[in-house]
Amino acid sequence: MAPPHALSATNLLSLFCFFILLATQTADAKIKRYKWEVNYQFKSPDCYKKLAIAINGRTPGPTILAQQGDTVIVELKNSLVTENIAIHWHGIRQIGSPWSDGTEGVSQCPILPGDTFVYKFVVDRPGTYMYHAHYGMQREAGLFGSLRVSVPDGVSEPFTYDFDRSIILSDWWHKSTYEQSAGLSSLPFQWVNEPESLLIQGRGRFNCSTLGPSTNGVCNSTSPDCSPYFITVVPGKTYRLRIASLTSLSALSFKIEGHNMTVVESDGHYVEPFVTDNLFIYSGETYSVLVKADQDPSRNYWAATNVVSREPKTPPGLAIFNYYPNHPRKPPPTPPPTGPMWNDTEARLAQSLRIKSHQGYIHPPPLTSDRVIILLNTQNKINGYTRWSVNNMSFTLPHTPYLVALKENLTNAFDQSPPPDTYDYKNYDIYSVANNTNATSTNSIYRLKFNSTVDIILQNANTLNENNSETHPWHLHGHDFWVLGHGKGKFDPENDPKKYNLADPIMKNTVAVQPYGWTALRFKADNPGAWAFHCHIEAHFYLGMGVVLEEGVEMLGELPQSIMGCGLTRGGSH
Amino acid sequence: MAPPHALSATNLLSLFCFFILLATQTADAKIKRYKWEVNYQFKSPDCYKKLAIAINGRTPGPTILAQQGDTVIVELKNSLVTENIAIHWHGIRQIGSPWSDGTEGVSQCPILPGDTFVYKFVVDRPGTYMYHAHYGMQREAGLFGSLRVSVPDGVSEPFTYDFDRSIILSDWWHKSTYEQSAGLSSLPFQWVNEPESLLIQGRGRFNCSTLGPSTNGVCNSTSPDCSPYFITVVPGKTYRLRIASLTSLSALSFKIEGHNMTVVESDGHYVEPFVTDNLFIYSGETYSVLVKADQDPSRNYWAATNVVSREPKTPPGLAIFNYYPNHPRKPPPTPPPTGPMWNDTEARLAQSLRIKSHQGYIHPPPLTSDRVIILLNTQNKINGYTRWSVNNMSFTLPHTPYLVALKENLTNAFDQSPPPDTYDYKNYDIYSVANNTNATSTNSIYRLKFNSTVDIILQNANTLNENNSETHPWHLHGHDFWVLGHGKGKFDPENDPKKYNLADPIMKNTVAVQPYGWTALRFKADNPGAWAFHCHIEAHFYLGMGVVLEEGVEMLGELPQSIMGCGLTRGGSH
Repeated sequence: MAPPHALSATNLLSLFCFFILLATQTADAKIKRYKWEVNYQFKSPDCYKKLAIAINGRTPGPTILAQQGDTVIVELKNSLVTENIAIHWHGIRQIGSPWSDGTEGVSQCPILPGDTFVYKFVVDRPGTYMYHAHYGMQREAGLFGSLRVSVPDGVSEPFTYDFDRSIILSDWWHKSTYEQSAGLSSLPFQWVNEPESLLIQGRGRFNCSTLGPSTNGVCNSTSPDCSPYFITVVPGKTYRLRIASLTSLSALSFKIEGHNMTVVESDGHYVEPFVTDNLFIYSGETYSVLVKADQDPSRNYWAATNVVSREPKTPPGLAIFNYYPNHPRKPPPTPPPTGPMWNDTEARLAQSLRIKSHQGYIHPPPLTSDRVIILLNTQNKINGYTRWSVNNMSFTLPHTPYLVALKENLTNAFDQSPPPDTYDYKNYDIYSVANNTNATSTNSIYRLKFNSTVDIILQNANTLNENNSETHPWHLHGHDFWVLGHGKGKFDPENDPKKYNLADPIMKNTVAVQPYGWTALRFKADNPGAWAFHCHIEAHFYLGMGVVLEEGVEMLGELPQSIMGCGLTRGGSH
Repeated sequence: MAPPHALSATNLLSLFCFFILLATQTADAKIKRYKWEVNYQFKSPDCYKKLAIAINGRTPGPTILAQQGDTVIVELKNSLVTENIAIHWHGIRQIGSPWSDGTEGVSQCPILPGDTFVYKFVVDRPGTYMYHAHYGMQREAGLFGSLRVSVPDGVSEPFTYDFDRSIILSDWWHKSTYEQSAGLSSLPFQWVNEPESLLIQGRGRFNCSTLGPSTNGVCNSTSPDCSPYFITVVPGKTYRLRIASLTSLSALSFKIEGHNMTVVESDGHYVEPFVTDNLFIYSGETYSVLVKADQDPSRNYWAATNVVSREPKTPPGLAIFNYYPNHPRKPPPTPPPTGPMWNDTEARLAQSLRIKSHQGYIHPPPLTSDRVIILLNTQNKINGYTRWSVNNMSFTLPHTPYLVALKENLTNAFDQSPPPDTYDYKNYDIYSVANNTNATSTNSIYRLKFNSTVDIILQNANTLNENNSETHPWHLHGHDFWVLGHGKGKFDPENDPKKYNLADPIMKNTVAVQPYGWTALRFKADNPGAWAFHCHIEAHFYLGMGVVLEEGVEMLGELPQSIMGCGLTRGGSH
């Protein structure tokens, strides 16, 4: 191969962009069309029969397999009886299609029973993504699946593997999402409790015998729904496992007994590879790990996921790493690997700090930002109801989507006054229960200057309980952000920015802030639309832990009628 | 009192009409305004805690008390999280306000979460009515209440009483309505089963001990929600009990231990009084009975409701008929009265035949009809799914309300071909399972000539099970009908009409057809609108046992925008 002396770095970049463009615009770019129907089905993912929201009869739903530059079209029919739906394409930035983000109250009205909504978007970046309900707490009912974008033909990735598999990790409750959300909205507050089971690709195993002798056929350990998921591997081959967490609550560890994993991608960005025997993963994150089937092939191995960050009251989720030609149901001869200490925050922080951009794929961040927003994460009370807040504002979605309200200037749709850019960081003690635990309810939003660079610092703090601070995985819609830093204690706006990693920060769409810690991220406000940024724990966002950002909505053309029909846009009467 | 020789009968009628008019148009006509908020609440109506849909925190919801001629305005806010609602004002004909009938898919689009819908209608006739959800199977979740219309000041009724009380009878399941409707839509069919409890005014008592030693606090027999309902009476006084059945499934008997009841009103019409110790009541019916507190006042008595027509697997619902000043919780010293034989169809038919118009208040029916529609009630299969049908057509609601589709000529909204006016009555054997049990799904409707007189014969038949025929209470929206006759076996179009009661038939809005029997009714198609006519058993209508009638829609003015926003009327794009 000739040395690239004739090509400057800039030229190389141009060439790279050209190929990207080519990939998205030539005949290679395909239309991937899906017809999905959503309804309730009785499922027994952990042997306990309960209602799940299924797509075409399945939960997790069908995996979308596309190639960079493809246009994905999903015709989504709502066949629920009385309930609306909306589906978010998690990690897809929706450049030029902010109305397809699938976030009820932000990018669209909900889809009514009997209606078919057409989501259409370009998958402009290869990587590991997912989709899930973004309305009420429906995600928790199993309405989710995998979305995998491969590189264009002829483009190679900075690692090789033989086979590619998608695996969703999730947590599962036996109570309905109605019971859970009603409990959260009750006085006194009724917490959803810890999940009964952890699922690997929609399968787990609840111990039916704990329910007593008669379970009325509700819990059946012989149900085919709950036979363990297995990953069949051919000895000597390397597998790319695309692991996505769609837990509603739990932070997880993931191990494959006796095997190391090489982390190579996260949220659609290549990671400078590192080897680990344990992967921490938070709700809303995805990771690609490479696993070589290089162990004794005469037996099977456990794949195990465990709860971390909260005291585990849920048994591990188990799957079988099945060496061909052993029977996939042949139990491994050894006990499943135990998870790491649930409360070892240091170990989890260490992984976060370890994740950096692959050296050959660095997107350099802007060196400075135009605006810094510090978001204090707290648990609060409003009129006695338990809520979560940022900067003492507890977020409530309006019933007119922001995207429409902003574009069509419906100023009555939400509170027009801006929420605060910071909190009283000099005086606030993040290690104690707040002196005044009251918060305010709001639906006001952060309006960003188009193309400006914005820093957001997530500042964690004590909850309403003494000596307690939780882990919150925050997810940003419509953008990736650079993860500039993680720290312990209270963020110091003077000195901590000096320690930012501006050299090789990973880009992500979801990042955790650890107990009593902070996380700093930076992004370009370069995608016209209205975008949610929120804790990905289902109950936390439901209880107000989120914000909405806007930029450049005035640059958008006419919005599709299909996203309207609720709130001030009902019946086209706006 | 002077003899009325100066007034002819016609003049008397004119005078009567004048007073009615006066009552509805003078300053006496009031506006009764209600603000209701609907959400999920944990309730324990039979001691077992589960979610109910409550209005302003209550189930049954608030009782509407109005006077003839009043305008009722209900501002209904949907505070459910992901679910729509609609509320029907059962027995109110909605003359001039067909868009306020509250029937999802017929008179309106569903009300979205966050939306407030304003129901506005005149209560033009005194009587005992009710309201309830008319969307999916939400009624069964407790979304209902009483609506009582009194006569204008100065107008007297053909009976007297001292006090007036509304009592709703209902049945109650521990499974959610989601589980029930998903089961009905499943292959294999999963029947909702018999209810766990019968409730009197929202209170019953499940035997928690049947659940085993540990009920996780879910079943609590000391919950204040399930302390028995009591009717406190003053010895010697006469009580008008307005009894309404909002069961989802059960036909009921109702008794007050040791007391006779004088039936005086049903569905807003005065009944020629008769005395009984047992009242049969079907879902959708209302009765006023007079009860005199004329028994030993030193003790309390049981009020008891029992399942009839289906083999009872549900214990009786019990309330306390409390003689003041005994403590209302003082148990009666005797066991509750037993119900009648559940399968004594003759006794139930006898009550139906006994109910005639009060002689002073006869609305004479037209002596002939312009059209006769015979509706064969059968249970069927469609693609293996269990359904109910009329004339082999199983009804499915469209997602564009008929009222809008008809008025605005949206011919794609539903099948424009008319459903059949009859079945093959010569050859069909109503006593056997059909030779061909397949039915067809339809959303086509009966279009009636405005002001024509229409007869409908409900013909019952064998279900899918040998030697089984069920009781179906049919409810007509927008009209009252004359009940011309009930018979056993197959209706004979030649001879049975000769036996019609054209002299003093009761008018009702709900009437039962007994197993293997028929019921004939007549009404004037004089109320412009689109009107459902259906079996009031929640699961039966859900599974297709209903039709829709239309008359005079072209006479209506512009429809309110508020009923639109779904199906073809979404986003005002029609």
